[in-house]
Amino acid sequence: MPSAAVDYARQNYPRFLSELKTFLRIPSVSTLPEHKSDVAAAAAWLAEEMKRIGLEHVEVIRTEGHPLVYGDWLHATSKPTALCYGHYDVQPPDPLDEWKSPPFEPTERNGNLYARGAVDDKGQMYIHIKALESLFKAHSGKLPINVRVILEGEEEVGGEQIARFVREHPERLKADFALVSDTELFAPELPTLCVGLRGMIYTEIEARGAMVDLHSGMYGGAAPNPFIALAQIITQLKDSSGRILIPGFYDDVEAPSADELKAWKQLPFDEEHYRKTEVGSPVLTGEPGYSVLERTWARPTLDVHGMPGGFIGAGAKTVIPAKAVAKVSMRLVPNMMPEKTFAQYKSYVQSLTPAGITLDVRLIHSGEAIVIGTDNPYIEAATRALRQVWNKDTVFIRGGGSIPIVGDFERHLKIPSVMMGFGLPDDNLHAPNEKFHLANFYRGIESVIAFFEELGR
Amino acid sequence: MPSAAVDYARQNYPRFLSELKTFLRIPSVSTLPEHKSDVAAAAAWLAEEMKRIGLEHVEVIRTEGHPLVYGDWLHATSKPTALCYGHYDVQPPDPLDEWKSPPFEPTERNGNLYARGAVDDKGQMYIHIKALESLFKAHSGKLPINVRVILEGEEEVGGEQIARFVREHPERLKADFALVSDTELFAPELPTLCVGLRGMIYTEIEARGAMVDLHSGMYGGAAPNPFIALAQIITQLKDSSGRILIPGFYDDVEAPSADELKAWKQLPFDEEHYRKTEVGSPVLTGEPGYSVLERTWARPTLDVHGMPGGFIGAGAKTVIPAKAVAKVSMRLVPNMMPEKTFAQYKSYVQSLTPAGITLDVRLIHSGEAIVIGTDNPYIEAATRALRQVWNKDTVFIRGGGSIPIVGDFERHLKIPSVMMGFGLPDDNLHAPNEKFHLANFYRGIESVIAFFEELGR
Repeated sequence: MPSAAVDYARQNYPRFLSELKTFLRIPSVSTLPEHKSDVAAAAAWLAEEMKRIGLEHVEVIRTEGHPLVYGDWLHATSKPTALCYGHYDVQPPDPLDEWKSPPFEPTERNGNLYARGAVDDKGQMYIHIKALESLFKAHSGKLPINVRVILEGEEEVGGEQIARFVREHPERLKADFALVSDTELFAPELPTLCVGLRGMIYTEIEARGAMVDLHSGMYGGAAPNPFIALAQIITQLKDSSGRILIPGFYDDVEAPSADELKAWKQLPFDEEHYRKTEVGSPVLTGEPGYSVLERTWARPTLDVHGMPGGFIGAGAKTVIPAKAVAKVSMRLVPNMMPEKTFAQYKSYVQSLTPAGITLDVRLIHSGEAIVIGTDNPYIEAATRALRQVWNKDTVFIRGGGSIPIVGDFERHLKIPSVMMGFGLPDDNLHAPNEKFHLANFYRGIESVIAFFEELGR
Repeated sequence: MPSAAVDYARQNYPRFLSELKTFLRIPSVSTLPEHKSDVAAAAAWLAEEMKRIGLEHVEVIRTEGHPLVYGDWLHATSKPTALCYGHYDVQPPDPLDEWKSPPFEPTERNGNLYARGAVDDKGQMYIHIKALESLFKAHSGKLPINVRVILEGEEEVGGEQIARFVREHPERLKADFALVSDTELFAPELPTLCVGLRGMIYTEIEARGAMVDLHSGMYGGAAPNPFIALAQIITQLKDSSGRILIPGFYDDVEAPSADELKAWKQLPFDEEHYRKTEVGSPVLTGEPGYSVLERTWARPTLDVHGMPGGFIGAGAKTVIPAKAVAKVSMRLVPNMMPEKTFAQYKSYVQSLTPAGITLDVRLIHSGEAIVIGTDNPYIEAATRALRQVWNKDTVFIRGGGSIPIVGDFERHLKIPSVMMGFGLPDDNLHAPNEKFHLANFYRGIESVIAFFEELGR
């Protein structure tokens, strides 16, 4: 039998949807200066909404960038405290002519709501707000647990302000766990919790040869070529089968548990379908002996993202550039330390320095992998809640990329994150015709209600 | 004893220099649209000058780009015909603040004339005009040989118009040899003829992996990386010692003659000085077993000029690009055919295609190497003339790059070029403070006079 809060939610879904549309009409594109006031308007709109539903200490926190929005309710003595995180900024909508309906005019089609930000992340963060509203209403203005809400307006541009706030004011966000709804279901109808993220180190190798750019007619055959040097180095970083050759690189890799691997094997995933529809290359690549999910979730990888330098225009210019750069990153898995991996990498790259070349190997940024135990009480409660709503067992997945805020919460607040997302793989994040499947919006609200009620028992 | 023409020249050097300065004040920068009328003014100025000294059929030939200037004098029955080539356009002068005197205000310092175009090529082409004037004056309006003069205004932007004119109107340029003064003395006081130029093929290898750009967090470990693929290919094109690995690549290489090699060994050339002052890398590179002059003049080479694709901005973007390109060129030496070399290269590169990658290997442009026999009668006459003026044996050098017009003359007019240049290695071509050593301007005029008188005997 649904709880009073779920009942309330169900009776109010038409209004919740209408409010979400109002929110989505604010073009809060964080990267575009001309939308600065829209981002501020979205923050103000949220603050009003948070006060209206019953949150306390609601505040639009000014920063050097876009504002944060904070609110809390902390009267559930001896109950745990949740930190609800979300972001109210969105990606730019271009290319505009590929949208079937205008990006900032939310439109329903086939059970989906189309708009920029529908799923990433306005729709998902609004799930938290509407779940809290339903709980307040059903419990006479009380919540079953303590809640802090922190919302940021620049996730799409790097999240610098919230990272600083977390670092500098951890006491203001004191909680037992964070709830982050900015991920996806592994497949439709499959309740999903993301319990691992790869870390990374992002580096540049700068190769310098001659002191100035030289003409390959005059100097070809005598001057070192930085691109050829970088090619030689890159080729020695990873063998043709995909195995990384940096000495010691795999030493600390922590393999997923047997249970986790077994669970991944049961996920509905078809490598050939993935190859055809998502990657589109003649074959997939990567380390032999591992499935695609293992290779993208649980194995470290190395990629080259760009090689600035020399001549990149159309046609021919016969320069031997004085220098060239390779942007090389590695994805790390649990138990690999970014500092140690970078040191191994740097020392190995330097040992490969070709004749005539001087190298500079630098770290641009790094982050540790994160793995959240499924025996964590918050994950356990979330799993029970999801079962109530979806009537299915939760699948535990990992993500190949990083969600920096989850790392910040772990590092500075010492709390785990429950990554409970309700997007779908075809929701067109960052692309035209972004959508949110409305059934998932509603089930998301019920899932969060059930989750907080579980924790309040 | 100097000839009457040389006497005339010597008496008129101050006026010749003053005229050259007038010519250099016209900022005929061919690449900048705002200087279009200046380029036209330089052409008109030259046409007037050519009429004034006694050339006939003088014409400013309109083209789709900057004009050509033509003139001739063809009354020396049974004597050879010279085609004097030069270009009156110049490189842009920037960076302006590095010039010690304004680039278009010719200024004498320490026996040099400083100005943009002083040596490349206005000063050197004006040598031809002043030699012809001196010969006309000393021989009652006649020349010892037949002469055609063709001057172009877009050598610095690719020379497309003159290439087309040579191809489409070879009869209008019918001659026995061309005289090209757009090269350098090997060292000060060392009369020099350039008798060989390397050819080239300039290519692009495009590597395509996924159908769209992918995020390395989500797809790293499954999607092929075009940069890593290109690195693997490039590394297999040339070994770490500098030897090119394309099967058959060296099959047709024609080595310089023993005499030529012996002569090169006697040139005043210090590899360590060259490394320090010109290249500046920790060591020089290139094929083992060959001197720098051999490697840059007489050995084929392979260089990478740029690798467009992916992310080249500052900082980090974790894209696995759908495609990346390597711009790869090879310098060719005599007897290597560009078509054949490209076919060998393309087939070899394709055989290296990494898993998951599709390659497109394309030719951007190509040109054959040129070698001009030193037993050629025009080279022999030039050598005798240079001995008269410089009182030294001529050194025969090659150039590592190409001078496309020399190839066009050979291909379409079937004539050899006498590359008799009077620049110095430190004349700052294409750079701030371009200069022409005035003694070389004067000796250049005397050398051309002596050359034409030799041929007229």
